[in-house]
Amino acid sequence: MTKKILVLPGDGIGPEIVTEAMKVLNVFVDEGSLNIEAEYAHIGGAGYDAEGKPYPKSTQTLAKAADAILLGAVGGPKYDTLDRPLRPERGLLAIRADLGLYANLRPAILYEELASASSLKPELVANLDIMIVRELTGDIYFGQPRGIETLPNGERRGFNTMVYTESEIERIGRTAFDTAMKRGKKLCSVDKANVLETTELWREVMIRIGKDYPEVELSHLYVDNAAMQLVRAPKQFDVMVTGNIFGDILSDAAAMLTGSIGMLPSASLNKSGVGMYEPIHGSAPDIAGKGIANPLATILSVAMMLRYSLNQPELATRIEAAVKQVLAQGKRTGDIYTEGCEKVDTIAMGAAIVAAL
Amino acid sequence: MTKKILVLPGDGIGPEIVTEAMKVLNVFVDEGSLNIEAEYAHIGGAGYDAEGKPYPKSTQTLAKAADAILLGAVGGPKYDTLDRPLRPERGLLAIRADLGLYANLRPAILYEELASASSLKPELVANLDIMIVRELTGDIYFGQPRGIETLPNGERRGFNTMVYTESEIERIGRTAFDTAMKRGKKLCSVDKANVLETTELWREVMIRIGKDYPEVELSHLYVDNAAMQLVRAPKQFDVMVTGNIFGDILSDAAAMLTGSIGMLPSASLNKSGVGMYEPIHGSAPDIAGKGIANPLATILSVAMMLRYSLNQPELATRIEAAVKQVLAQGKRTGDIYTEGCEKVDTIAMGAAIVAAL
Ligand SMILES: CC(C)[C@H](C(=O)O)[C@@H](O)C(=O)O
Ligand SMILES: CC(C)[C@H](C(=O)O)[C@@H](O)C(=O)O
Repeated sequence: MTKKILVLPGDGIGPEIVTEAMKVLNVFVDEGSLNIEAEYAHIGGAGYDAEGKPYPKSTQTLAKAADAILLGAVGGPKYDTLDRPLRPERGLLAIRADLGLYANLRPAILYEELASASSLKPELVANLDIMIVRELTGDIYFGQPRGIETLPNGERRGFNTMVYTESEIERIGRTAFDTAMKRGKKLCSVDKANVLETTELWREVMIRIGKDYPEVELSHLYVDNAAMQLVRAPKQFDVMVTGNIFGDILSDAAAMLTGSIGMLPSASLNKSGVGMYEPIHGSAPDIAGKGIANPLATILSVAMMLRYSLNQPELATRIEAAVKQVLAQGKRTGDIYTEGCEKVDTIAMGAAIVAAL
Repeated sequence: MTKKILVLPGDGIGPEIVTEAMKVLNVFVDEGSLNIEAEYAHIGGAGYDAEGKPYPKSTQTLAKAADAILLGAVGGPKYDTLDRPLRPERGLLAIRADLGLYANLRPAILYEELASASSLKPELVANLDIMIVRELTGDIYFGQPRGIETLPNGERRGFNTMVYTESEIERIGRTAFDTAMKRGKKLCSVDKANVLETTELWREVMIRIGKDYPEVELSHLYVDNAAMQLVRAPKQFDVMVTGNIFGDILSDAAAMLTGSIGMLPSASLNKSGVGMYEPIHGSAPDIAGKGIANPLATILSVAMMLRYSLNQPELATRIEAAVKQVLAQGKRTGDIYTEGCEKVDTIAMGAAIVAAL
């Protein structure tokens, strides 16, 4: 069966890295192991430029019909003065909500060849392999009421609502337990149950559904302690699960532990297995158009797409092996370059992966 | 004029470390350079044990009359099964709110002698000296409405409210700018203004009051990026200011960067300069009563008390110099011990500081 892929290059380095990732995907099409139909559309600043909105209607229509979406990156200084609802990142929030992409899987992996890139001592991060499962369509990101109001005394007051229902918590919890079952069977749930009722309920639900996964060792950390433990001894973690805002903070901290965020992919899934796949790094406007961006995070996002939305785990594994092989060959884009390696540009890195496949 | 100090030893190692800190304070009393009257009361689990509440009425009365409060630590496994409103940390939240201790100053300092304790590469953290200014009486910690409700379909829903008024933001903002003026004149304000209206207002107010501090270089980071930058290159920061929940997470991460949280003090101030001073580490129930806890964070909290509430900056500096001297002598409690140093217990460490004074 032909699968529909929507490609959203977005802004900044987005188009360059997505081009390389599509070349990799097309290797499988050409060899006959994959049947896809790819369409292209705009999101973020590109959506605003083309149709006046960061998540245009035409993009929405294609997104709703797609089996999987490959996204480059959104944002750039050019859009910073727009009204907030028109800004690129609102396009991202809109597509997440619109497609119900509630499960954000963010691996933090440190490749042996890049161990020295971390700001942490090598022995603390060598072979780091954490999976952060972040809830992506609830919490204070979307909670109502929200806004800025003027009080009777004339001063303004900003407010937002953190909110989770039991079923929202259970849904992401099951994703996290299922993920842990396929990995090291250790799950750490992160909350602030000593202060916030929302996360008191979160912890209660995690404990309850944990009974259905007797093989998984479930632990709980307060978010402040989780941030400390990530800095102190990240290898103690296998899978972590948390809400949208805590996940935003912790997953970025975890990614930075590896020192090579140009290498890290992500998946955002809905309940039908439709997913959006994107590198965790941003649109890097400072190097956009120079042809020097690292395409590996986007290429590894394609691997996640093959695994989670296209039911092609072997092809995913082939990409991951190709990335390791190319790193072992010593090829590096500027962001991960160290002395003694061979510096390559975006296109050459894409070509190296294609060759390794 | 005699200053009233309220001493709240609290739980776990609290009594042991507070005892040493009071010996240090009494050096100044004995030599005639300080005039204080100290009273003792219960908080946290100790408050519950003595009077059935984590912040007893008798403690409240003394707290309201005090010029400064020295707190050890609260919490312990013994209290984990209590109803939430009776738990030790609720005593902490209650006294913060009751005294209006809105400004939490949390230095993250890495002493040269302890540089190897950090999980980060030494060159990234050597001589680290960041001050995190965390708002402590607002935000989602205290926002209404909050709770867990049952929806018509029978499922439960947890909710909390993030909220800041302009005047609350301005108040902590001025504390942060004033702090920056006395240090490196660089202030980084942390928010999530791209998603949360509350912090959109936060950023607006910071920019506005920044005009009154033209010498301070003001920057802004989203909280996810701030977490990354702290891990990647912490020395880029001088003073950071943020709300209660983001400050909870970031200040703990920053503290852990130093690898020696047994060394870090904190101050929580209200608008009259009354302050509560406490080590940032917890009650460490596993080593309580063994006489091996590190009293230096509490002793350095006394230094902050002398500086911020007792108007004795010279005495504060003397304590800080004594701590450096004792570290240079090679004396270490277990938590900061490395080979070649002299391992000392709580009382011996306190005595070493007294001797150095
Ligand atoms: C751009 C922003 C809205 C977004 C978020 O906060 O979710 C980003 O930080 C992310 O983590 O994908
Ligand atoms: C114990 C807890 C309520 C407290 C907080 O979250 O403020 C602690 O983590 C702190 O930072 O002082």
